[in-house]
Formats: sequence, C-alpha cells, structure tokens
Amino acid sequence: MKLIARRRDEQQETTAVRVGDVIIGGPELVVVAGPCAIESYEQLLSTALEIKRLGATMLRGGAYKPRTSPYSFRGKGELGLEMLSRIKELTGLPVVTEVMDARDIERIADVADMFQIGSRNMQNYTLLSELGKTKRPVLLKRGLAATLEEWIYAAEYIMSEGNDQVVLCERGIRTFETYTRNTVDITAIPALKELTHLPVFLDPSHGTGRWSLVSPVALAGVAAGADGLMIEVHPQPELALSDGKQSLNFEHFADLMDKLSPVAKAVGRKLI
Amino acid sequence: MKLIARRRDEQQETTAVRVGDVIIGGPELVVVAGPCAIESYEQLLSTALEIKRLGATMLRGGAYKPRTSPYSFRGKGELGLEMLSRIKELTGLPVVTEVMDARDIERIADVADMFQIGSRNMQNYTLLSELGKTKRPVLLKRGLAATLEEWIYAAEYIMSEGNDQVVLCERGIRTFETYTRNTVDITAIPALKELTHLPVFLDPSHGTGRWSLVSPVALAGVAAGADGLMIEVHPQPELALSDGKQSLNFEHFADLMDKLSPVAKAVGRKLI
Amino acid sequence: MKLIARRRDEQQETTAVRVGDVIIGGPELVVVAGPCAIESYEQLLSTALEIKRLGATMLRGGAYKPRTSPYSFRGKGELGLEMLSRIKELTGLPVVTEVMDARDIERIADVADMFQIGSRNMQNYTLLSELGKTKRPVLLKRGLAATLEEWIYAAEYIMSEGNDQVVLCERGIRTFETYTRNTVDITAIPALKELTHLPVFLDPSHGTGRWSLVSPVALAGVAAGADGLMIEVHPQPELALSDGKQSLNFEHFADLMDKLSPVAKAVGRKLI
Amino acid sequence: MKLIARRRDEQQETTAVRVGDVIIGGPELVVVAGPCAIESYEQLLSTALEIKRLGATMLRGGAYKPRTSPYSFRGKGELGLEMLSRIKELTGLPVVTEVMDARDIERIADVADMFQIGSRNMQNYTLLSELGKTKRPVLLKRGLAATLEEWIYAAEYIMSEGNDQVVLCERGIRTFETYTRNTVDITAIPALKELTHLPVFLDPSHGTGRWSLVSPVALAGVAAGADGLMIEVHPQPELALSDGKQSLNFEHFADLMDKLSPVAKAVGRKLI
Repeated sequence: MKLIARRRDEQQETTAVRVGDVIIGGPELVVVAGPCAIESYEQLLSTALEIKRLGATMLRGGAYKPRTSPYSFRGKGELGLEMLSRIKELTGLPVVTEVMDARDIERIADVADMFQIGSRNMQNYTLLSELGKTKRPVLLKRGLAATLEEWIYAAEYIMSEGNDQVVLCERGIRTFETYTRNTVDITAIPALKELTHLPVFLDPSHGTGRWSLVSPVALAGVAAGADGLMIEVHPQPELALSDGKQSLNFEHFADLMDKLSPVAKAVGRKLI
Repeated sequence: MKLIARRRDEQQETTAVRVGDVIIGGPELVVVAGPCAIESYEQLLSTALEIKRLGATMLRGGAYKPRTSPYSFRGKGELGLEMLSRIKELTGLPVVTEVMDARDIERIADVADMFQIGSRNMQNYTLLSELGKTKRPVLLKRGLAATLEEWIYAAEYIMSEGNDQVVLCERGIRTFETYTRNTVDITAIPALKELTHLPVFLDPSHGTGRWSLVSPVALAGVAAGADGLMIEVHPQPELALSDGKQSLNFEHFADLMDKLSPVAKAVGRKLI
Repeated sequence: MKLIARRRDEQQETTAVRVGDVIIGGPELVVVAGPCAIESYEQLLSTALEIKRLGATMLRGGAYKPRTSPYSFRGKGELGLEMLSRIKELTGLPVVTEVMDARDIERIADVADMFQIGSRNMQNYTLLSELGKTKRPVLLKRGLAATLEEWIYAAEYIMSEGNDQVVLCERGIRTFETYTRNTVDITAIPALKELTHLPVFLDPSHGTGRWSLVSPVALAGVAAGADGLMIEVHPQPELALSDGKQSLNFEHFADLMDKLSPVAKAVGRKLI
Repeated sequence: MKLIARRRDEQQETTAVRVGDVIIGGPELVVVAGPCAIESYEQLLSTALEIKRLGATMLRGGAYKPRTSPYSFRGKGELGLEMLSRIKELTGLPVVTEVMDARDIERIADVADMFQIGSRNMQNYTLLSELGKTKRPVLLKRGLAATLEEWIYAAEYIMSEGNDQVVLCERGIRTFETYTRNTVDITAIPALKELTHLPVFLDPSHGTGRWSLVSPVALAGVAAGADGLMIEVHPQPELALSDGKQSLNFEHFADLMDKLSPVAKAVGRKLI
C-alpha cells in the first residue's frame, strides 16, 4: 500500500500547511523563533516583539518541557499557555508549542495554532493518532535515532486519521561525534522532498547545540531546500533555564536574518 | 542530588523486584518467555505451557503492540488481555505486558503483574510518572539510542513517584551494523551494576533480530551478570504476525534452557 | 601543547593552500570534479574538458582505488597516472589523486599537484607522516567514524613534519540511516572553521551516495562556508566501474554549476 | 564468487591457526595477555612471567603504537622488538605485536609469531596484501565502524594472497554511548561463526575502556563462543604510558583467570 505521506507521484506540489495566516510549503521561507522554554511573561513578550520586528512569522515557546531528569525545570505548564495566549493576541504571531500527553491536547489546542511533537515522542503512537483526529497542523520532529522511513511512518500515523497538515522537522540525529549536541542530517531535507510531499523544516539550534554554529547551519538548510527554520532565541541565553548554549540572543538573531535573505533568494525562495 | 536509582553506595545489594512469587535480583536467574504478540488463545496457551515445562517462570505477551507502520498488526488489545488473564490463572505464571498509553494503565493492571515500557516510550515521561504512582513492577527497556545515563534518569521518573520496583532491560541499540537488527550492548549489564542497584535483564531476541543468534547472546548475558532474560518464543515462528525471525520455536527454546543452566552455575546463579 | 592545526587565535585568516594556479582558502570557491576512477583515456579526457568548460578548476581521478573487496576493480594504477599526466598537460587543470601506500608517493608526485588521503587511511599514520615530508598539498578526507578531534590530529601528523598545505574534506560519516550511503555532517564545516585555520571542502558525492541528492547538499555546503567542493562526474554514470550511483552526468553537473553561482555570491564567495 | 573466508558450507570446522605451539580455533580457549605498549624490559618481563603463571599462553606487547596524537608516546620501536625477542626466549610464550607499515614487516617477522592489524588499519589494503604474502598468522582487529561484511572482506585481502591463518578480533565499535570507550558487539562472535570458518577473539580491554568491566565482558565473550581473549595487563596500570584505565593489574588478572575456567567449561571449552 502506498502511504498517504509518500504519494509524491500523484502530488507534484508540496502540501500547503496553513498556520494562521502563514503558509508553510509555498514560495516563502517561514522562520519560527522564540525561547526553548517560556520562563516569564517579560521574557516571552520581549522575544516575541523582537523576532517579529526582525522578520520571523511564528512564535515558538515550550510550556510543557520534556527533560532528561525529573528534577530539571519542566516548564510553566498552564501558566505558560496563558502567557502564550496573551502574547499571541498582542503580537498577532501564530504559535507552536509542544504536546507530550494526549490528555493535554484540548488545553493546548485552545492556544496553539500548531502542535509540536518532540523527538522523544516521535514514536508515541497513541499521541500521534490523537493529533490526527484534530485537524490542527503538527510539527513532527525526527526521533533521535529514527530512519527517514520510520519518520515518514510516524507522519502516516497522523495522516491516516485524516489530518494531512504535517510538517517534518529535522533536528539532528545521534552519532559518535561529541563536539556538537547532535549531527544535523542535512541530506534529509532533499531526501524527504523526493520521498514525500510534506514541507520540511530544519532546527539548527537542537541540531548543533552551539549558538555559534546555528547561523551557518541555518543557511545550509535553506540552500538544501528547507521550507522553514525553527530557531531558539532568548533575551539572555546565559541565564536561560534550558538550552541556553544553543540559543541566539537578539543581536545574533538579527545577524542571521540579514544573512538568510540573500541565500533564500539564491535558491528561489523569499522571506516574507 | 544523588538519584534514587544510583544510590549504590548506600545499598550494596540489588533491589529485589517481586513479581507474583518470582523475585528478580536475587540469586536465581529469571527467564521470561512468550510470544511477541498474542495472536490467539491456542497460540498463547501452548506457548505458556511449554515454556513453563521448560523452566521459564514468567510469561510475556503483547496485547498492545507499537508498530512502525499504522497499517501493521497492532495487537489484540482488550481481547488479548482477557486471554492473558485466563492463561495466567491456568498456568500460575505471572505475566508482563506492554503499556503504551497512560489511559490503559488501569485496564492492564487488572491482568499484568508487571508493566513493560518499550524502547519507543523510554522517554515518554508522562507514562513513566503514571507508572510511578502505581506500585506495580516495571520492566523498562532501553531506548534505541539512549545512553546509560538517560536510561537511569528514565527509571528515576518512575522511582521519584515512589515506585522502586524497576528492572532495566537491555535490548540492543541502533548502530551502523545491518547484519543484526540492533547491537546488543553487553557491557551495559556490568556497567549498570556499577551505576545502580536495580536488577538488569537482557532481551537477546530484539537485540539480535535473528533466532540463530539468540542462544549464544543469551548465554553471554548471563555470564556478564544479567539477573534475567526475556526471550521470544512462538509455536511456529514462520507464521508469526510480528518478529517471527527472532522467535525461538519450542525445540530451540528447550535447547537454550539446557545450555543456560551450566553457565548460570558457572557465575554463581541458579535457574529455579 | 597547542596543535599547529589549531592555532586559530594566532592566525585569523584561513591558510592558503596553493595547487598549481588555484588557491584554496581564499575568496574563490574551488570546484574539483572528475570521475571516481580513471577507466580510459577517452573517459577522463571528455570529463576533464567538460568540467573545465563548466567552471571547475581542478580535476580528480583515481588511479589507485581502495575497494572493500579485493576482487573489485582497483584502478588502472600506473597506466592511470600516465593518462592523468597527459590530460593535465592538455587541459592545464591541476590534478588531485589518491595515495594509499607510502611506496607510491614518488611515482604519484610526478603527476599529482595534490595528494588525496581517503577515509580508510585517515589514521594511517606512517602514510600521513611521509606526506608531511613532501611539501605537496594534501586533501585529507574524514575517516568514516572519526571525530573532529581525531581528524584534526590526523592533519597534525602531516603538519608536524613541516607541511602546512592541508585541506580537510568532509565526506559523510557512518550512521544508522540507510537511505543515504553516509550522513553528511554539514556542521563540521563551520565547526572546523572555529577549531582550525585550514580550508574545508565538502564531497557531497560520497556523502550522499545518490546523484539526485548531490546538488542540494553541495549548495548547503557552500552556504555553510565550505572553501570548495569535490564532485564525482562521469560521462555515463550507469556504466561506471565504481560509484556510478553517486556520479553526476555532464548535464547534471552543468545544472549544479548554474545553481552554485548565486549561492556562493549570497555568502560572499565567488566562482572563478 | 564465494569468498575464501566464507566457505562455511564446505568447511564445517573452524580453521586451526597455529601460533608456535598454540592452536587457535580448537577446543582450548586461548588467552593472550600483556601490556598495551612495551615500556621497559622489567615491565614486560614481570608481566610475561605473571600471565604465564596464571595460565595465559601467548604474550602481547606493542613496539609500534598507533596514537591519535603525533605527540603521544608512540612505542619503543626496534628496542621494543628486542625486548620482546629476549622475553619470548626466556618464557617460551609465543608473541603477537602490531604492524602498521609494510616496510616493518620483515623486522617484525624476526620476532613475532603473529602479526596484529589494529582497528585503524583494518582497511589498509596494501598492508593486508603484504601480510597475505607472508604465511605468518594475523590477528585482524575490527575497524571501529566496520560492518561484519567489510571485516570479512579485509580478511579476504589477506587470504586471497594465500595466507589462511587469520583470526578475527572484535574490539568494540563506535557508538553514541560515552560511558564506555567503545561498544562491544558481542553478537559479532556467533554471527562470524555463522558467516566464516575463521577463529574469533574478543578484546574486552579496548572494547570497554574500563578495567572494572573487562572481567564480566570477557566471560560474556567466552559464553558467546569466542575462541580466545586478548587482555591488557600491566604491573601498575596507574603508571602506564597508554591505556592504563583499561588494563588489569596482576591481582585482577588472576581473578579473571579464576572465573574464566568454569564458564569455559560450561560451554564445552577448556583452558589449557
């Protein structure tokens, strides 16, 4: 049986995934930015205003955070969702946030324009199926040792329930290399374009784990054909409660946006 | 903070995990056997009777099966649980079965003496926490690219909720080697013995993916200090609905049990 | 002790490696192209003329080929070197070719402007040291499971003998992913720029193993900051004696060169 | 074409490899022990006498050492060979030592009963071919990211030159796990027994990188069917010039030999 996600021959164009007014998979390159975790109203607001000013068109921010240790900061939860809701209203930016538990879907759906499935849950099949039943867009991150085939099957769990609004997000895989947090599989971008009709994102923040490498790898992603980028931005990365090492500050994010534009143009895309 | 799972210095002995009458982590080597998936009452019954006759002391069998493709056989569900319940009564064997969704916990708890967390859900933190709130033993399989440290933290998610009845089960990690389904990390067994006070199992069936390799790798696990083994057994592996290639038939399982006994003895363990 | 290869703080600029008239590590992006293995005079000549016409500035071609099986085609040997010599004279293109044995160095040095060390020999220390004693440039490919650190140490084996003309060439590492031949570690490019002052190349042909993915990954490499590319080109890839699947034909190579120019410009580089 | 190394169907028995009086691949388990690197006459002599007393039947010791950094201790060279020669005469133990350069073969052949090819040179094809032309036994270690298939092909490079005296030595592969130096692929032992007729060794010292894990993994190797073990032993591991962390002192080696005997017996092998 031909998977819904793989019907590339029947569908030449990339599926358009609509998140508020933003269209993912069209000619425009979509930049999603924001903090790893929502820490405070001020942190989220200042970041949202700044990334919007610099050209990002969607806001990310985690309210529920999967953490390796149960004793780490695990997010603001409902309070975080409320902050997200108010800032979305203020800025008009559509928001994407992670869901880890099928029981949180409704609550998160009140705020989020797009659900995010993190790497650790890429094969949490009950969660995928439940998201398939909503018609809300899903950003599906690659599992840290998932093959392209397994990843496409994970998308199929969502799509086979009737939801075709799926974006695949490469975020690096686990290898023996220790200088970087993960190894970005840049080839996954054109490979997925051959294998599926779904839009493909790149997250160079998790992919590299070092802020100094985020910008060149983001440019590489665009050159390789990514439909969008997901970038961690924090007002003061050195004080972040999670993933500070891989977050850009405002100045570095501005610098990235400056560099993105000509590369996008060079491969026939434009920033909005 | 010292993790509960790692208080090896305060606790010299391996934690005893009690599953029905079976004690895991004591001087006796525990063999859990049964089919990958429950396919029919007859299949499960004949397997249960045979493995019991040959010396296994616990029965495994999946009612809810995580499968890469949504179109594969995903288990008998509640019907499977009913079969498990009847056969448990008939044979007296305690049973372990996989839970993939927090909403199934109660239903599975009516039948299972031990919950199994599969590789794909090793970092499904909401599921781990919910199992922590039950006091039922948990067999926690290693994620397919999980470090020892991440695995121990996953156990801590269960233990920090008050449930110390956790068994770690090595089942192979993902590497570049393609001859085997996974690469058994045999060193994980003594390494976990240094790092934690939890009992450690080996699953050579998933670890190797080839029935002909199950037996030598099982012996290796015992020699390396495993507290128990988890072995897939099927009356007719060539007809199995899942994992047939790695399942032993009755004759091969009998042969394995014959070989296990002297190796267990050689390292100071005994079969029951 | 600070490695010679890592004296980034003392040396802000990338080391200029001179191969004939070509400067690697300067503002110009260098494209090296040619067949995996030299098969015949006609094959090499037609390829050399075509890649030159399309803007490549160096010719590659293997006379001595490391092959997994001793029974595979292992190159034309000295005959291949002679062809390389004649075609170099005819076209004026500097040439790079692989050396696998210290005893071949002199013979190859008569023809080659640059030595190539392949992945399998990245830690062949006697070979590295011998090349260090020549002052000829060396293209050092990454070992298939080498960390960045080990790779830099391999360069140090050459440099510590007095030869600073070393170019590092990323060609993909080995991971669990099977859709591609190797996994291109795109982040290695900016990471090496942080860690060393040596020029960095990308070989998207070996990196991906599929011709259809070579072009987008080549563009990604340029966007990430590579100083050059190494591309396998063959007049009729479907008839190639080695690596046909990953070789571009002339039409596809022309298409790549067309796309390269704007991306190079977007990141402040130019094609010659 | 059927590889010479894989003619398992034509040859039921494991190839007997003869090193002095020692037969590898027969009913007896062979233990090779000694220091990673030869550091002094006293160090090598005391180790040789002690391992012999405890039941090892071959001596290992590196005179030429491949080291990641060119500035690390790279072995005593010819002086080391002389020491090896004198101690071989004194103790009667056959010796195995590493060769890294085809130009050293003759010199090493004067002393060594068996050549060792290290991981970094597993695909150094010119070296393999040259060793094939000698009729001296070769211990061929697995490359750190070599598949079983590539490893068998490497053996074929030796065998196709007429030398069938090859022993394959598993020494761990490179994975994401950082607690251990490498990941021992224990399944490789029975897998190679299916695929080839060559004897198989395990090196748990390099495989684990931690002395405390050497003993349980050595026992696992024997239980899995290894024909022999290669163990690093040093009079004072804390003072060793290389690999001290993974070397056993005499007491720990004695303890391992005590434990080996019953496990060997349990799988139908005996120590000499």
